[in-house]
Amino acid sequence: MSERQPPGSRIEIRVRYAETDQMGLAHHMHYLAWFELGRTALMRANGISYAELERGGLLLPVARAELEYRRGAGYDDRVEIRTRVSGVRSRAVSFAYEARAAADGELLATGTTTLVCTDSDMRPRRMPGEVAALLGRLGDSADGEPE
Amino acid sequence: MSERQPPGSRIEIRVRYAETDQMGLAHHMHYLAWFELGRTALMRANGISYAELERGGLLLPVARAELEYRRGAGYDDRVEIRTRVSGVRSRAVSFAYEARAAADGELLATGTTTLVCTDSDMRPRRMPGEVAALLGRLGDSADGEPE
Amino acid sequence: MSERQPPGSRIEIRVRYAETDQMGLAHHMHYLAWFELGRTALMRANGISYAELERGGLLLPVARAELEYRRGAGYDDRVEIRTRVSGVRSRAVSFAYEARAAADGELLATGTTTLVCTDSDMRPRRMPGEVAALLGRLGDSADGEPE
Amino acid sequence: MSERQPPGSRIEIRVRYAETDQMGLAHHMHYLAWFELGRTALMRANGISYAELERGGLLLPVARAELEYRRGAGYDDRVEIRTRVSGVRSRAVSFAYEARAAADGELLATGTTTLVCTDSDMRPRRMPGEVAALLGRLGDSADGEPE
Repeated sequence: MSERQPPGSRIEIRVRYAETDQMGLAHHMHYLAWFELGRTALMRANGISYAELERGGLLLPVARAELEYRRGAGYDDRVEIRTRVSGVRSRAVSFAYEARAAADGELLATGTTTLVCTDSDMRPRRMPGEVAALLGRLGDSADGEPE
Repeated sequence: MSERQPPGSRIEIRVRYAETDQMGLAHHMHYLAWFELGRTALMRANGISYAELERGGLLLPVARAELEYRRGAGYDDRVEIRTRVSGVRSRAVSFAYEARAAADGELLATGTTTLVCTDSDMRPRRMPGEVAALLGRLGDSADGEPE
Repeated sequence: MSERQPPGSRIEIRVRYAETDQMGLAHHMHYLAWFELGRTALMRANGISYAELERGGLLLPVARAELEYRRGAGYDDRVEIRTRVSGVRSRAVSFAYEARAAADGELLATGTTTLVCTDSDMRPRRMPGEVAALLGRLGDSADGEPE
Repeated sequence: MSERQPPGSRIEIRVRYAETDQMGLAHHMHYLAWFELGRTALMRANGISYAELERGGLLLPVARAELEYRRGAGYDDRVEIRTRVSGVRSRAVSFAYEARAAADGELLATGTTTLVCTDSDMRPRRMPGEVAALLGRLGDSADGEPE
């Protein structure tokens, strides 16, 4: 991977019947759960277990989310979730996502979420240096500020 | 209320758009969440706050559930959930539920769940005497064993 | 209500156990379902049944959503959802939301969603005149464009 | 596969953060969605696309479900869902499920669901001969009646 193309993760999910609504497409709220799977996978692939972070007393609640929906995803459709770090600060990290139809690569939705770093009582704290460094390396140096 | 008709609770929910699936009806898994609302309301109405029980280190995980679905519930339909205690033992309590269309009273689904009493490490423990006594008074003496 | 304060809706929900996550608070995706309840209630209070619109072949899929989370909502907490129309165009309508703790009025989250008007095959179409007029009257004339 | 061991399906899911509740384990309702994934996979592996059946006007709503929970599943845990056909009749099919921890094979939960065959207006109808035959071959001849 070149410096210009920071590493990201690609996972594939299948739309569950329970995720569809009567419009016949995945309900828009589930994209937030899929994006969460994307960032968990990205972190795991880079040696950061979110489950372990949390057992160590560190939480990463979502402080902000933006989603743009272009085309719906139907039941049993395979959807690729592409995730990358879009910004890292001392107490926050942002991720950017694309959801694409696995069949033809068409863009279904994009999104960003910003997560803040807190202790188990939801008080803001600095990210552990090791984690910040790792996320920083994953992030795009061009737009290093959380959006 | 007579002794023969033990007290129950009635709550009303409206089917959320997010709860429908592409069949155009509430997905069958949501009845478990509605029944949970029913038993929480029944307990609250009788002076037992499940939230407080849990803060005191007592958990009531579901050990068994049975559901029978007769007619579907559509988006925005009002559904009445009737809940009663169907059995109490030292370490378990069972609830029985009916979901009825609020518009015409027609039966949509029935169910039972059995919850066991554990500490915060999921180890079985006896129910606090006060709680057991209260649930016991709510229960139908005729079928006092959890199903 | 004065002309300067356009009509909105206030509904109250209680955080369901099934909506909490292991952080001990409502998972962030459920706010999208709560906001959906808010706009449905706002429309219903003003004589627009979304269920009926849909039976008439009109869909309002969400095209864009933004959420900002300030404080979490715990299990069984009562949360007030305040909804208002923030913009109306010929083929789209935007809603703005506040989620507040019912107990003390503290702001938990804010959000906006933009919905587009389509036929049952997801092709864009103009909003029926009657609906557009009604939503327009609900909207704040000062910021009449969907965000 | 021998005649004595009818074919089943094994899929693996990972517990999503959004599926946990404040007990720190997957909420009990999600097992119904996982079992649904299991039977969809079993059918797909045997040439039956549920999505296609539905496009052809055939629905398979759940008429009955039973679940028994033995041990919880934590966030990010890999869970294996094993599904088999446990009974086939002209208008109904039953599936039996096991959820096991992928790490050590320990049994987490078991369940059964019975689905009835209906047209798109929810009127009971006979299963298409081809589908019934296929499900029948998948089923265990020893307990051929839906439970």
